[in-house]
Formats: sequence, structure tokens, C-alpha cells
Amino acid sequence: LLSVRAAAEKPLLQVLGGKRATQVPIWLMRQAGRYLPEYREIRSSAASFLDFCYTPRLAIEATLQPLRRFDFDAAILFSDILVVPDALGQLVSFESGEGPRLAAITGASDLAKLKATVDLARLSPVFEAVAGIKAALPSGVALIGFCGAPWTVASYMVAGKGTPDQSPARLFAYQQPGVFADLIERLVDASTIYLIEQIKAGVEVVQIFDSWAGVLPAPEFDKWCFRPVQRIIAGVKAIFPEMPVIVFPRGAHLHLQQIARQSGANAIGLDSAVDPAWAAGAVQSLIAVQGNLDPLALVAGGRALDSALDSLLHCFRGGPYIFNLGHGILPETPVAHVEQLVRRVRASG
Amino acid sequence: LLSVRAAAEKPLLQVLGGKRATQVPIWLMRQAGRYLPEYREIRSSAASFLDFCYTPRLAIEATLQPLRRFDFDAAILFSDILVVPDALGQLVSFESGEGPRLAAITGASDLAKLKATVDLARLSPVFEAVAGIKAALPSGVALIGFCGAPWTVASYMVAGKGTPDQSPARLFAYQQPGVFADLIERLVDASTIYLIEQIKAGVEVVQIFDSWAGVLPAPEFDKWCFRPVQRIIAGVKAIFPEMPVIVFPRGAHLHLQQIARQSGANAIGLDSAVDPAWAAGAVQSLIAVQGNLDPLALVAGGRALDSALDSLLHCFRGGPYIFNLGHGILPETPVAHVEQLVRRVRASG
Repeated sequence: LLSVRAAAEKPLLQVLGGKRATQVPIWLMRQAGRYLPEYREIRSSAASFLDFCYTPRLAIEATLQPLRRFDFDAAILFSDILVVPDALGQLVSFESGEGPRLAAITGASDLAKLKATVDLARLSPVFEAVAGIKAALPSGVALIGFCGAPWTVASYMVAGKGTPDQSPARLFAYQQPGVFADLIERLVDASTIYLIEQIKAGVEVVQIFDSWAGVLPAPEFDKWCFRPVQRIIAGVKAIFPEMPVIVFPRGAHLHLQQIARQSGANAIGLDSAVDPAWAAGAVQSLIAVQGNLDPLALVAGGRALDSALDSLLHCFRGGPYIFNLGHGILPETPVAHVEQLVRRVRASG
Repeated sequence: LLSVRAAAEKPLLQVLGGKRATQVPIWLMRQAGRYLPEYREIRSSAASFLDFCYTPRLAIEATLQPLRRFDFDAAILFSDILVVPDALGQLVSFESGEGPRLAAITGASDLAKLKATVDLARLSPVFEAVAGIKAALPSGVALIGFCGAPWTVASYMVAGKGTPDQSPARLFAYQQPGVFADLIERLVDASTIYLIEQIKAGVEVVQIFDSWAGVLPAPEFDKWCFRPVQRIIAGVKAIFPEMPVIVFPRGAHLHLQQIARQSGANAIGLDSAVDPAWAAGAVQSLIAVQGNLDPLALVAGGRALDSALDSLLHCFRGGPYIFNLGHGILPETPVAHVEQLVRRVRASG
């Protein structure tokens, strides 16, 4: 009972639980990372980025670093969405300054080489990190776990890297729809299991990142984005009915109302291109919203930052709202601008 | 009178004039270009891509090439949106396989170095090409001229190249809003003059390409995309009140209804991520729509292509509609798939 009451007092969980929050909760996507000098310092302790993610001591430290500087309402596990393909046996690496590189899946035979199910032993350092973070978490701060949405993860698995519009996966899905459906199916299962294990280890909220949801035509969005995410949420909630889920379908503007109504999520993360005045009426009336300050306004700072964030706080003041960026914080963001941001959000009351 | 009657019979002009078309007009963005072997052959005739655009004989030939193969309802002037910065005196070049390179504008002093107004003498080969294309145009085929929208053109002028999300221009606009407004202002004037000269030379429709409209938050969209395009359209229509204007605000999904109602355009080009079932009710009820087959479905061909195009024709059958892609045709598109597409659109009646 005590722990339930304590949890209920965390502002992020209040909003996600449909309650009136004592303050506007704030956290930032990629709040642990390269814009922090102390992160850049520990980053060199591991040979590769994946090694870093799989070393609990380092993942714990990276996750906690931003909380020592900023009055955030959440910690988000330091990891990467591509640990799932890695734990399915696909070769994954990160080239410094170039992003991820994977042994691209080009057809059924590549898919057949993957493990039948996600290798939880491979992921055990992640769960160990979750437990370590949870134990060290400041009071009032909620711990968020996450995974990538199947479409977004699949788009990297097929392209073997990030591309301007993930067209290799879109083409693959047109040319080999059965094989692609199989890949998505495996990712639904793997992601559900992965989130459940994160929850068992201690996360209090999960977020599903669908960074490439915006590039698909409507029928493909339904098949490859909407339904798979809906199934992951149902799978998680079958085991943990009260677990709050946030979805971040970047660019899926015309599908936000459907997601709000039918995905089963508790909140939607809005990207920066979503008009907050529109979203307050059309989305926030259905579900809690999170977002959507332009990360470049945070880089710019000064009056541009103040005016953009004031406008967000004004638009979303009437309903359940979590302050965040509309995409990940950029490495070139000055730490002082994050301080300015948090101060002003707190001053808003 | 004769020429007016002939023009009115072109299916594209029928749709744009609010009349019932005798057939669904079809053309494809970037229909002249690298996917055609005959284009690749003549491309080497000019030393640089800009030289190619500025050589009337080559621009005319490239524009007409797709019309010899395909039963299209429109020709679109072969040129590039970056001739406008070139004619404003900015250094513009095209690196083979790497896209455009410009001497980036980093502040007021770079802007001050540009010409006060667009150099029409520099652009005269473009107008000469328009006249030559017009003279050679098959009957029933309409000639489309174009320019880039100020935001999209400015985003290249500031970044000096294409980037994944044109963030340099977004940051510039936050940090130096007055200078950026001045740049946008100059582009509104230059684009208006440029379109008017194209119309004088013979184009029958103009399209304004705002390929990067989708990356801006709502207040910036209004300032840098919506209002500048609205002003260009008003400027063109002040001289040529009957001239049809198509706008293509790629990614500006939540602004489509505002554009339909208030921009002054005669049609909106929809990108592939716009749900046609939604757009038929929400947009096509206000204005003619153009689009939005996924260019990757055209690369894929076969059943994926047939099913995607049938669905479009079905959704948009009840109102004014121009068949097109949702973005430019890709260089890897097989010519046979374009034949399959045109055949099937024509067979739809």
C-alpha cells in the first residue's frame, strides 16, 4: 500500500493515471546523452555503444546523470531500440558519428537466420540496469522503459542503417509482404516480452518509439504501425493492466485521433510539427498528450525558447499534459538552455 | 477564342477550372529525369546540371521526352527550384550524386550580397525553353511551370545543401528572425516575378513546391510557409486572375484544410502519407486534389502498384482529381511500371 501511494504521488504517474497533477511533469526525450559533458566523459569507458548499453554500471550512471542537474519528473532507461534486433541475433553495431549499422535483411532466408524468440540472457544487463536505476531514483521521479515500434525497428533491420525516409523497408514491404509481415510479427512478440521484462525489473511507465510512423501511406500505416503497436500494448496490459503506456508516432499526424481512441495507450507523444492549438481540442480531449517543443528552439534558447514553451503551456493547460520535446534533444543543445526551460516550466505553476 | 476553347479542352485545365473532366488527368512529379534512358543520354551533353537547365534545346528535349512514351496530360518544365537563388546571385552548383551545393547564408551580411531583385536575364533561357516546349506540345497536354516555395528554397540557401530535416534554416529562423523574414520576403518577390515571366512565356498552370513544409511547428509554418505562398499566389493572380495554381505542401498534413480554404490555390498536391479516404472528405470537398501514389509502389510494380492505384481512383472518384505521385518519381523506377500505371488509370475511364 505504501509503495502504491508513493507511486501515485509522482506527477508523471498522476497524469498518466488520469488524475490532476500537482505540477506539469517534465522530461526530455534523449535527456541522457551527448549534450551532457559528463556523459561524453563516461562514454569512452566502453569500447562500443552496444557495450555501453549492456554495461549496467554505465547505463545506470548515464540514466541518472541528467537528474543530478535538472528537476525532471522522469528518468528514462539509457539504451537503444536496436538491442531488440541484436537480441534476435542480427548483427548490430554503431559507427561513431554515422549511426547504426546492421546486417540488412533482404528476404526470407535472412529472416530464417534470426533466433525464434528474443534472447533474454543477452538483454539481462538491461534489466539489471533497470533495477539499479530504480534503487537509486530520487523520490517523485518515475522510471520509464521503452522499445522501438515494430515498423521503426524493422525499417533499420531491412535498410541496415538509417536513411532519409526508410524507403528500403517500404519497398521490401511492397515486394515481399508475407516476409515483412513475418518480421513485424516477430518484433511484436519480442517487443512485448522485452517490455514485460523491463516492467518486472522496475520501470513504472513504458514508451513505444515509432520515429518513422510518418512515412507510410494509410493502408501500410494501419498494417505496419497501428495494429502492431496496438497488439504490443494489449500484450503488456494483459500481464500488467495498470501499466501506463506512452506511444510516440512521429509524423503520423492524420492518425493521432485513431491512436488516441483505439491503440490502448495512456498518452501520445506529439512531434514538433503538430499544432498544439489543434491537438488540445482534437487529441488531448481524448487522451493525455506529451510534447512538443521543437528541439531547435531549445538549441536557440533566449526569447525563441521562452515564447515557444509559453505557447505550449498555454495551449495544453486545460487537460492532461506532460512537457517534453517533439523529438530527441540535440547534441549541440547548451546545458544552460535546459536549465532555462525547466525553470520556466516550474515557474508556470 | 479558338485558343481559349482548345485550352479548355485539356483535361488538366478542366479539373483546375472546376469543370467535370473528360478523363482523370495524369502526370508525375519529376516525370522528366533520370529513370528515362533517353534523359540519361542527353544529360551528359551539358557540363553541369545548371548548364543543362539553362540550355533551352536540352530543357525542351528533357521536358518532351516522357510525352513521347506516356499518355500524360501535362508536361512540366524541366528545371530546378534553385535557379531562383542562382538568379539572386547566390553561388549554386550540383555535385553529381550528392545534390545541390550553395554558398550558405549565415547572416545579414551574406543576404546583403545578393542582388536586390531576381536577374531575369540570367533566367531568360528558362523562358525561352517554355516558349519552345509550348510550340511543340501535343494537343490536349497542358504545360506546367513551377517554383519552389520560399521556405523550401530558403532552407537550401541557409544550409547550403539538402539535410535530413533542414534544421539549419529552422535554427537560423529562431536565432535571426528578422534576417530570415527578409530572406523569405525576397523569395516571395523573386518567385512571384519568376512565375509571372513563365506564364508570359506560355505555361498554363503553375505549381509551387514546398517539399519541406512538414518540418515546422505551427507558428513557423504560418510565418514561413503559409503566408509567403499565399502572397505569391495573390501576386500571380493580380496579373493573371485565371491562372490555375497548384500547391504541394509536403508533410503539412494538419494544415491542408487551411491551405484549401485560404491560400488562393486551385489544387493541393497530397504527399503519400495523406490518407486518401480522409482527404476525399476533408480536402477534396473544398478544392481539387492531386496525388498521391507512393513512388515506391511504382518502383515495386505488380499487384502492389495495381492495388494502391485502384484504391486512389476509388477514393477520389467523387470530386476534382488529378492523378499523380505523392512525391517525385524515383530514378530506379522501371519504365514498364509507368506504362502499367498509365494504362490502368486510363482503363478506369
